[in-house]
Amino acid sequence: MDSNSKPTFEVCFSPALLGNYELEDKIVVVIDVLRATTSMCVAFENGAKLIVPVETTDESMSYREKGYLVGAERKGEKVEGFDFGNSPFSFMNEKIKGAKIAITTTNGTRAIRASIKADKLVVGSFANLKTLTDWLKKQNQNVLCVCSGWKNSFNLEDTLFAGALAYHLQEDFGLSYHRDSVLAAKHLYLISRQDLVGFLKNSSHYLRLHNLQIDKDIDFCLTANQTNVIPILKDGVLYEISKLEKANASY
Amino acid sequence: MDSNSKPTFEVCFSPALLGNYELEDKIVVVIDVLRATTSMCVAFENGAKLIVPVETTDESMSYREKGYLVGAERKGEKVEGFDFGNSPFSFMNEKIKGAKIAITTTNGTRAIRASIKADKLVVGSFANLKTLTDWLKKQNQNVLCVCSGWKNSFNLEDTLFAGALAYHLQEDFGLSYHRDSVLAAKHLYLISRQDLVGFLKNSSHYLRLHNLQIDKDIDFCLTANQTNVIPILKDGVLYEISKLEKANASY
Repeated sequence: MDSNSKPTFEVCFSPALLGNYELEDKIVVVIDVLRATTSMCVAFENGAKLIVPVETTDESMSYREKGYLVGAERKGEKVEGFDFGNSPFSFMNEKIKGAKIAITTTNGTRAIRASIKADKLVVGSFANLKTLTDWLKKQNQNVLCVCSGWKNSFNLEDTLFAGALAYHLQEDFGLSYHRDSVLAAKHLYLISRQDLVGFLKNSSHYLRLHNLQIDKDIDFCLTANQTNVIPILKDGVLYEISKLEKANASY
Repeated sequence: MDSNSKPTFEVCFSPALLGNYELEDKIVVVIDVLRATTSMCVAFENGAKLIVPVETTDESMSYREKGYLVGAERKGEKVEGFDFGNSPFSFMNEKIKGAKIAITTTNGTRAIRASIKADKLVVGSFANLKTLTDWLKKQNQNVLCVCSGWKNSFNLEDTLFAGALAYHLQEDFGLSYHRDSVLAAKHLYLISRQDLVGFLKNSSHYLRLHNLQIDKDIDFCLTANQTNVIPILKDGVLYEISKLEKANASY
C-alpha cells in the first residue's frame, strides 16, 4: 500500500467469490448478520473467554468433554442436545461469563474458515458497527468484507451491513478495482437504513427466520451498536480484541 | 412449475455463482451490458445472419477462412487483425447485413458458454429491454438472469439491467428461494434509472471504458430500446429469434 494513499475497502458478496480477491495483506471482516456474527459479538459482550468456530456438529460436540459450552445451528434452528443454537439471546446469561464456547453455524463459521488467509480476521455485525468502524479507521490497512451469504448465495442483510461499513468508512478508505460491490452495498444501505427490518421483509433469510417465529432475533440483529466488542481470530480461535491485546502486552 | 403459480425470476450476479442455480428448465438471459450483449443486439438489428460466440481469439480468427466476419475484444480493446472489437458502433454498417460473425469477448461470450445447460438461452441488454420483456412475459417459463460480471466479479451495469427486467416483470413473475439478488438488483435500478450514466460514473468498467475514450459506447449501451431483436442460442450459435422461428416453421 502506498503510504500516501488511503487503504482500500472491498466487499465480497459470497465465500464462493473469494477467489477473485487477495486476502493475505488485509483485514477481513466476516459478516453473518442473521445471526452468527451478531451472536459472537453478544457472547463476548457477556464475558465469553473465547469462541472456537468449527465446521461440523460432531466437531462442536467434541468440545463438551473439554469443558466448553457447545452450540450448533442448522437451517436456522438449534440442533438437539447442544447448549445453544444461533440466537443472540442464548448468549445473554451468566453461564457465558468466562466460558469457552465451540459453535458451528450454517454459513458464518464456514465463511470464517474460508477467510483464514487474511492478515487479520475480525467479526462484524450491526451489534458492533461503531466499535468496529472506529477500530478499522485506526489500522491504516486494506479491508475486505466477506459476506457469508446463504449456502454461497448473495444475501441482503450481510450486504446491508457491508454497506453500513462502506458508508461510515468512505472518507478514510479508497476504492480498489473491485469497487462495484462496494458501491452497490453502500447504495442499498443508504436506501434502507431508516428501516432495515422493513426493507428486509421480503428477503429470503428474513422469511426463513420469521417462519421460525424468531422475529425478536431479527429485530435485535438489525439494531446497531448493542455491543462494544471486536472478535478477532488467532490460531483458529476468536477472542475479544482488547483482551487479546492485553494478553499479548503482558508477555 | 405449478400451472396455477407464476413462473419465477432469478438473478445470478456472476458466472462463478451459477453452481447455486438450476438451469435445465429455465430461460437464461445472459447480460453483458458493456458491451458484448448490446453489440450482439445491434448486429442482429443491422441484419446479421448469425453470431458464433467463441472462447479464444484463435478460435474467432479460424472462422475468417469460412467467410465469417471475426471479432475479438480483450481488456476493452479490439485485438489487432480482427474486423471489430466489442463496440456496438462497429456493427452498424452495410457489411453486417447477412453476415456470419464469430466473436470472442472478455466476459459475455464466457457467460454464454457457462449457461449452455439452459432450456433456452437469450441475450439481453438495455438495447432490447422492451422486446425482451414482452417476449419473456409470454413464455410462462422460469427465468434466470446471468450477469457476466468482470472476470467473475460482481458488476453494476449488468446488475442494473437485471434490475430493469425484475422491475418490468414483477407483476408476471414470482420470487424463488434465490430472491435477495433480485431485490437488490431491482432497488439499484429504481434509484438509478433516471440517470444510469451518472449512477455508473464511479463504477469499475465505466472508468475502464472512459479511460479508453469510448464514452459514446457507454451512452449507447445504457440507452433503452434501440433494437427490436432477441438473440437466441441454438446449437452454440446465436440467431435472431423471429428468423429462427420462421425457419423452424418452414420445415
